[in-house]
Amino acid sequence: MILKMYRSHNCGELRETHQQSQVTLSGWVQTVRDKGFVVWADLRDRYGITQLIFDEERSSKEIMEIAKSLGREFVIQVKGTVIERASKNPNIPTGNVEVLVSEIKILNKSLVPPFTIEDQTDGGEDIRMKFRYLDIRRNPVKNNLIFRHKVAIEVRKYLSDQGFIEVETPYLIKSTPEGARDFVVPSRMNEGQFYALPQSPQTFKQLLMVGGMDKYFQIVKCFRDEDLRADRQPEFTQIDCEMAFVEQEDILNIFEGLTRHLLKEIKGVSIDKFPRMTYDEAMKKYGNDKPDIRFGMEFGELNAIAQHKDFGIFNEAELVVGIAIPGGAAYTRKEIDALVDWVRRPQIGAKGMVYAKYNEDGSFKSSVDKFYDQEDLAKWAEVTGAKAGDLICVLSGDANKTRTQLSALRMEIAQRLGLRKKNEFAPLWVIDFPLLELDEETGHYHAMHHPFTSPKPGQLELLDTDPGAVKANAYDLVLNGNEIGGGSIRIHDKQIQSTMFRHLGFSPEEAKAQFGFLMDAFQYGAPPHGGLAFGLDRLVAILGGQETIRDFIAFPKNNSGRDVMIDAPAPIDDLQLKELHLKLDL
Amino acid sequence: MILKMYRSHNCGELRETHQQSQVTLSGWVQTVRDKGFVVWADLRDRYGITQLIFDEERSSKEIMEIAKSLGREFVIQVKGTVIERASKNPNIPTGNVEVLVSEIKILNKSLVPPFTIEDQTDGGEDIRMKFRYLDIRRNPVKNNLIFRHKVAIEVRKYLSDQGFIEVETPYLIKSTPEGARDFVVPSRMNEGQFYALPQSPQTFKQLLMVGGMDKYFQIVKCFRDEDLRADRQPEFTQIDCEMAFVEQEDILNIFEGLTRHLLKEIKGVSIDKFPRMTYDEAMKKYGNDKPDIRFGMEFGELNAIAQHKDFGIFNEAELVVGIAIPGGAAYTRKEIDALVDWVRRPQIGAKGMVYAKYNEDGSFKSSVDKFYDQEDLAKWAEVTGAKAGDLICVLSGDANKTRTQLSALRMEIAQRLGLRKKNEFAPLWVIDFPLLELDEETGHYHAMHHPFTSPKPGQLELLDTDPGAVKANAYDLVLNGNEIGGGSIRIHDKQIQSTMFRHLGFSPEEAKAQFGFLMDAFQYGAPPHGGLAFGLDRLVAILGGQETIRDFIAFPKNNSGRDVMIDAPAPIDDLQLKELHLKLDL
Repeated sequence: MILKMYRSHNCGELRETHQQSQVTLSGWVQTVRDKGFVVWADLRDRYGITQLIFDEERSSKEIMEIAKSLGREFVIQVKGTVIERASKNPNIPTGNVEVLVSEIKILNKSLVPPFTIEDQTDGGEDIRMKFRYLDIRRNPVKNNLIFRHKVAIEVRKYLSDQGFIEVETPYLIKSTPEGARDFVVPSRMNEGQFYALPQSPQTFKQLLMVGGMDKYFQIVKCFRDEDLRADRQPEFTQIDCEMAFVEQEDILNIFEGLTRHLLKEIKGVSIDKFPRMTYDEAMKKYGNDKPDIRFGMEFGELNAIAQHKDFGIFNEAELVVGIAIPGGAAYTRKEIDALVDWVRRPQIGAKGMVYAKYNEDGSFKSSVDKFYDQEDLAKWAEVTGAKAGDLICVLSGDANKTRTQLSALRMEIAQRLGLRKKNEFAPLWVIDFPLLELDEETGHYHAMHHPFTSPKPGQLELLDTDPGAVKANAYDLVLNGNEIGGGSIRIHDKQIQSTMFRHLGFSPEEAKAQFGFLMDAFQYGAPPHGGLAFGLDRLVAILGGQETIRDFIAFPKNNSGRDVMIDAPAPIDDLQLKELHLKLDL
Repeated sequence: MILKMYRSHNCGELRETHQQSQVTLSGWVQTVRDKGFVVWADLRDRYGITQLIFDEERSSKEIMEIAKSLGREFVIQVKGTVIERASKNPNIPTGNVEVLVSEIKILNKSLVPPFTIEDQTDGGEDIRMKFRYLDIRRNPVKNNLIFRHKVAIEVRKYLSDQGFIEVETPYLIKSTPEGARDFVVPSRMNEGQFYALPQSPQTFKQLLMVGGMDKYFQIVKCFRDEDLRADRQPEFTQIDCEMAFVEQEDILNIFEGLTRHLLKEIKGVSIDKFPRMTYDEAMKKYGNDKPDIRFGMEFGELNAIAQHKDFGIFNEAELVVGIAIPGGAAYTRKEIDALVDWVRRPQIGAKGMVYAKYNEDGSFKSSVDKFYDQEDLAKWAEVTGAKAGDLICVLSGDANKTRTQLSALRMEIAQRLGLRKKNEFAPLWVIDFPLLELDEETGHYHAMHHPFTSPKPGQLELLDTDPGAVKANAYDLVLNGNEIGGGSIRIHDKQIQSTMFRHLGFSPEEAKAQFGFLMDAFQYGAPPHGGLAFGLDRLVAILGGQETIRDFIAFPKNNSGRDVMIDAPAPIDDLQLKELHLKLDL
């Protein structure tokens, strides 16, 4: 349907074939070039830019005057004739034509915008957030939002075609003590009581499975009142899915299919079968449960060959582990010192780094030549996969911490070497996650995924004797070193669910108060079921080849959880508080 | 993709062509008929019901025992052979076959459900709400949810094809004093401050227009903390839309197109051009701004012919108005008395009702024969469109109240006469709504649609002299007597928006505090724009031929805003309150 009143065409549409057509365009003035007897203006809308021309010979005096009065971001409507452009602009699709304006109307004026509405703007992050409605006019932001729309369309299309039903679950639910903090909503009608905003529709989607809905999905907002780290948002969007009468293999197949569909439709990338890796293997090889496998640099564990050689630091370490940096043998002493400083930064926390250059001539030069001879170092090279010309970097200490540190180094180096290519996509299933995770501060175990995750068959008994060893049918989809989403096969037996709650430190009363409705539901024929959730914000950002989810959210919040554009949150008036049966306690 | 582990087919799939196939099915036991030597069970899943057969000759003793132990709603998996059924059931698609079970596994047992999982259940509303997950297993509820999904799919398809972009707007926004009460969300990180949940994304969609997004839509949850009337929900879903560079005509065309698409795709109903009616005309003809035009019974105003005839009640009335009830001349005295009682009920509030029978023989018999002769009554018949055999019912009094009362009578009669046919669809645009509405209690005007609605061109001046007479480019789409949605052309000029806020009683400081960001945005090149929102819950219910929106919501709340299934809202613990800087004030 073409909207005829304000425009006959949009600003990205006119071509040489339109020459001599009478057209009506509306949009924003991008630039004005006033050469005295002739004025050019670029008119911009969502679809592109079209050049307008006004000249003394062919345009009325009145129109010339208006043209000369135009400022950046004025909203105008013009009528005119499409003509061939004298100096063509091959960089834009409309670059061969311009519109000779015969009528013009200023629909709205504009103050000078606080930053330029260009792909490369002069505006900093803060001012662009405050004037987000102007930032959205810029191609990079606008295109991100359109890109997000397209991804959501394809997600819905794929899942609907597979028989999934999108069911809306409620936003005003009940606060639960597990996981992150809830945002709560005081109830006016139920004095002293609160709703909570969902951290995810987890229990509702499980109830839909009990309700026979079989294949559910929803693209849905979720809420977590966490202290915001960089690039976290208090509200975020999930592709939330659940299926009944399925095993893990079914779920991996379906959502591998979804991801493959998106990569194909959105990025034109065909990927056959996604590799799979257990959690244990990912930790061992990459020190990370979401490894970026677009590049190698796999970990080599050196305990067997580097310990018992008089080097006390290694001898005392639980783990000695290294990676080979391609081409790193060429690093100067200064560059290597900088690397050592990098791993010793408090954010990384390594005490130091041992290194060995594997020179192009096949010889080795290490920081620990006193303890290790050429033969020893050749073994290091073998284990870390180093080739002549590489630099072997070795960290040691507590196994978990050392892996995390070396993983950070690996990612940093890959970034520097340009190995994290934004148009290369390497998905990976990480499977067999531990069921429980030890909280080192409290000494208690908590659910690694969530309390509804089922232990692997036959491992329930281990819960009492070696809880940390229990594995779950839990899985994450990792894409380019980012966790896109994860899920699990759920518990569908009331007894097992009670046992889980007990192990997680819930008293029977607490479990009943919080999740009684779910355990009740399990008594009325709950089918085997499982599912997962993808983070849409991150998925879109990664498919878009970018890192920051905020760039793909129309109106994001800053790191204090504030919307600086509308200035929220804000105080409310006393009457509102009174109606909600609340007092401030500052 | 067929899921192979738990089932090879679903329970709605098997036909005679599958005979002799080995199949695996999973689902719920609907019924068991144990005839001793043979046991039949109906197995149900989302897709249908398949009959299972176990018999002593062909099934093992162990399987027979399990079959006999099955209870309603047990979850089982069976393997077996598809065979022809001895006594066929033509009422279900799988009715010609049954599965002779060779393997069976009970996946989960079930307590006896608190109501029968049948299309006609024995469960009352309350128990079904508490066990909503069981209610969803019933076809009527399940099919409503699937129907809703299909409507949403078609809405997204149509709007995307028209170039609309679905943009997610934030849920944690700022409380505004206009309209209904906001639900608020205390901020932990911003002491003493609150977010509000959106009553609609109104200001954000307008900012998207300022941002050049041009054609926006979103299927989005909205929240209103109102005292709940029947069939209102504190959270509800809107199809929210906005367009820039459009006039009212563009918007009506696009969304008439959407509605036509839905009627065609979902209901198979083709409707050409939707009729349009001004608000004034709707009030005059139907006493209602959302008239059901599936049937006639239009109002006839009798002031000119019924006043000045010595009947004091009519003479003193501002309005004398009647409708003709088809076939009503046959009503007995008792039936008519009941009608009079009906309009005098407090919910309707009429003081009385005058009636005139237009007998089949052409004569009239009225309750006011003392004042009106046959000729007078013939004029009444002419004005109300009554035919021989009809009953003319006349109410009188204050114009607005009388119209509302007569509209209620008209709808009641239509309901009784079966004129509100659920598979007939009569859409109608009601246009030219008043800009402002007088609050009779306070004597103040408030925005009939919302404060961002633009007065009709040239009517701005009337705001000072005759505010009630100012009309707006505001419109509602009415379907079968229900308001499906509405919208308006918005103000896009800062000055006019300020004037509007002033007329609505905002001080400049209040306007700036609440909507400063919007008025600021209007200074940077805001395009002409407008839009509308459809209520998805109601739209789906009406398309589904039903009245109650709750039946189309997976997990609705009751009239006290409670979710009785999960028992929310609920108290939160003291630590949570403290973190939110709040105290209860009960």
